Amino acid sequence: MDAAYADLKERLGEIHDLQKTRALLAWDQQVLMPPGGSGVRAEQIATLDRIAHTTFSSDEIGRLLDRLESFEADRPYDSDEASLVRVTRLDWEKARRVPAELRAEMSRASSLALPVWAAARQTSNFALFLPLLRENLELRRRYIDCFDTYDEPYDVLLDDYERGTTTAEVRAVFERLKVDQVPLVAGATREGERPGRDRPFPLEAQRQFELQVLERFGFERASWRLDPTVHPFASSLGTDDIRLTTRYHEQNLDGLFASMHECGHGLYEHGVSRSLERTPLARGTSLGLHESQSRLWENLVGRSLSFWRFFFPRLRDTFPEALGDVELEDWYASVNWVQPSPIRVEADEATYNLHVILRFELEQELLAGSVEPAELSEIWNARMLDYLGIEPANDRLGVLQDMHWAGGHIGYFSTYALGNVISAQIWERIASELPDLDAQFEQGEFGELRDWLTERLYRHGRKFTPKEMLERIVGGPIDPDPYLRYLGTKLATLT
Amino acid sequence: MDAAYADLKERLGEIHDLQKTRALLAWDQQVLMPPGGSGVRAEQIATLDRIAHTTFSSDEIGRLLDRLESFEADRPYDSDEASLVRVTRLDWEKARRVPAELRAEMSRASSLALPVWAAARQTSNFALFLPLLRENLELRRRYIDCFDTYDEPYDVLLDDYERGTTTAEVRAVFERLKVDQVPLVAGATREGERPGRDRPFPLEAQRQFELQVLERFGFERASWRLDPTVHPFASSLGTDDIRLTTRYHEQNLDGLFASMHECGHGLYEHGVSRSLERTPLARGTSLGLHESQSRLWENLVGRSLSFWRFFFPRLRDTFPEALGDVELEDWYASVNWVQPSPIRVEADEATYNLHVILRFELEQELLAGSVEPAELSEIWNARMLDYLGIEPANDRLGVLQDMHWAGGHIGYFSTYALGNVISAQIWERIASELPDLDAQFEQGEFGELRDWLTERLYRHGRKFTPKEMLERIVGGPIDPDPYLRYLGTKLATLT
Repeated sequence: MDAAYADLKERLGEIHDLQKTRALLAWDQQVLMPPGGSGVRAEQIATLDRIAHTTFSSDEIGRLLDRLESFEADRPYDSDEASLVRVTRLDWEKARRVPAELRAEMSRASSLALPVWAAARQTSNFALFLPLLRENLELRRRYIDCFDTYDEPYDVLLDDYERGTTTAEVRAVFERLKVDQVPLVAGATREGERPGRDRPFPLEAQRQFELQVLERFGFERASWRLDPTVHPFASSLGTDDIRLTTRYHEQNLDGLFASMHECGHGLYEHGVSRSLERTPLARGTSLGLHESQSRLWENLVGRSLSFWRFFFPRLRDTFPEALGDVELEDWYASVNWVQPSPIRVEADEATYNLHVILRFELEQELLAGSVEPAELSEIWNARMLDYLGIEPANDRLGVLQDMHWAGGHIGYFSTYALGNVISAQIWERIASELPDLDAQFEQGEFGELRDWLTERLYRHGRKFTPKEMLERIVGGPIDPDPYLRYLGTKLATLT
Repeated sequence: MDAAYADLKERLGEIHDLQKTRALLAWDQQVLMPPGGSGVRAEQIATLDRIAHTTFSSDEIGRLLDRLESFEADRPYDSDEASLVRVTRLDWEKARRVPAELRAEMSRASSLALPVWAAARQTSNFALFLPLLRENLELRRRYIDCFDTYDEPYDVLLDDYERGTTTAEVRAVFERLKVDQVPLVAGATREGERPGRDRPFPLEAQRQFELQVLERFGFERASWRLDPTVHPFASSLGTDDIRLTTRYHEQNLDGLFASMHECGHGLYEHGVSRSLERTPLARGTSLGLHESQSRLWENLVGRSLSFWRFFFPRLRDTFPEALGDVELEDWYASVNWVQPSPIRVEADEATYNLHVILRFELEQELLAGSVEPAELSEIWNARMLDYLGIEPANDRLGVLQDMHWAGGHIGYFSTYALGNVISAQIWERIASELPDLDAQFEQGEFGELRDWLTERLYRHGRKFTPKEMLERIVGGPIDPDPYLRYLGTKLATLT
């Protein structure tokens, strides 16, 4: 019996190696690769995906899982061993439904689409991107056809990112957010000049300042990297090889918030128990839980007054030309400035969810065929006007801004707003258990927060479903109220 | 029959993807990876090696090769198709002899050894490296035991880098070199101050100047990268994804020569016919032929007077503080300065082969057990005194200087001196066919040379054995005379 477990673990270790190697292929492609490499890179990624999928969805894995039924039942639900068998069984049953060739086609299509998307975005040329979007949608329809147990087709896509969460559940949360947030945004939108914008922020100084912040969060040079890219992301190539990417703007500090955001993802991956290394549990529970951590470190920490009480004097010393005439209170208002804008990743906390809800709705309409890909740009712009009161000047600032649909990640966006909602639920819990946190932030100390999150969330990796995990931390299901409370309170202090 | 060929090609394409991905894992490890990643990185490399080896040495590949016997016989020897079947058959027969587990152990041992070697080198601590050297030697002995058709055990290792070349053949060439080069070095050693050394060469300006040189050689930003590392190397992740690495010194331009050297490797890989992409023929013939190209571009081009007639005025403009008082003739003497020194990669053309011959002899003695690993440092230093008249001050400058033995590459070093020998053989041929070359170099033009090499050598990839390839280019076997002639002539003009 133990031999079967050791056998399963070794096979899963190899598959994990392939997946982490695949993550390096993708990281390299987005950070460093010369463009000439894209053709063979797509083949390399497709090959690794195919081998990983074929090895994982094999009969042998199924037989080992069968043999391990009583092994699993004999062990505590939250043990490494029972969790590995339980989660692997769910993964395996799902993987068995998808032919290896379809998997390979999906990954090849997304590798080939990424450079085309980048070119289309650069030139704001939606027509260039359109055939790839059609192909990715068609591939997702074929993917959905592999399954039969769902209420709505979109459930299948959502389940890949947020296991066990249905479209109906997300819709209920989002409807509530929309009802409250659309008028909230209209009321909280700031007029006048935003302090500390359009000033010179030399890039190398930004990088040095960011590293100071990230190192206080937990970034260590022995196990982390920070590199520039087009669309920031975080990647874990191993629990002690965490790669953050960011982008810098010469005239503002938006890049700092992108870096804090990605650092939240990195802290989660880095905090997973070393006993889970090289297993499929060595990553975050779900994208929603993951995003709750990036948003927590970016917003609940990085846009708090206590955080800036510590860092603002240092920031002003670093950028005297840009910030010499700016006071802490102005800066705090600036980093929490509510103003509808076209780009999701630069959106403030009040408008961000509306960007996501727009995509969540459009994805379902595209899949159902009630929106044609060719008319997407027009509908995108019209809906931006409805929800945010603005229209993007071009597709670069509109439908082409994000890489997700080029990468085939349809169903992914909603996890961003779920992350916001969950971050506030967890934050209310933390605030009740660590009442001293603001005082610590004012001293530049974030260790107690990181330790709390590691103990309650990070170390468990992917042992539990998102619902189980949230229940363990906050004692209940997903709930938009804490986020709306947090937002209401913060905006009230700012206007 | 064509279906069998298509099947073979598809399987080989997947294996090639795994090998190129493995090359990225290694490139990343040496260029960027945070040290914390080394544990799982070793597992990732071992897993990829194991899968590639198992897939390649399978019965299915053997059956396909059997079915393709008449397919191969029906096609010209130098056709892509016949060459792919022929070379694959030799590779397969060799691979079948080595158990997958031994392969995996070898690659895991080398991945784990590299960071330890780097630490041992840093602190000049041979004792730290000793157990790893013992393990690598033992693994190579087990590897040799997998074979039975050789005259000397070392033949097995040599054959991996220089197929079909025996220890006896290399020994004959090296004995001839040693007889002539030891007295040559003694007679040509320069006294006095070497011009243009120990001056300030700002790193960013070096990088910019290097790129100017490399771009004239054929480096294009769309398909190449140049990054700093500890021990320079070149890696091809695809024919249009060429990665050069180099190292910079603040007080001299040795890094430029390292970059021209690696560029020669890159030009070879980049010049392979696109019809061979994603096949095992999509790389250089052998390490010796490969090195002939790095040495050709570094030395026969990059240390020639005509090259510097073009570049020296530009170099002096770039580094006025370092070179303002240096004339072209002084600089030409400086870059061809003969002076025994401890570090192989910094050795001049007259002493370089002696560094290699020392390693070639020690490797055989270590394998045979006539030299104990524990006494290696002492013997190394004594032999340096014999051949070069100097003793390294410490092991960092002696036995720990190169990564090869840490990486398990025993048998590799000799290809460096073979490369020198072959480079001069090819150069004599080029000189007879392109008499105008010096005039072109004086104009900064290297295209005709690159085209000649691409047509005669690069495009063929790995279709031919080193002996066949050399026969095709120069019409004869390996011959040390052209190198000794080249060296004698050059040194005569310099002293």
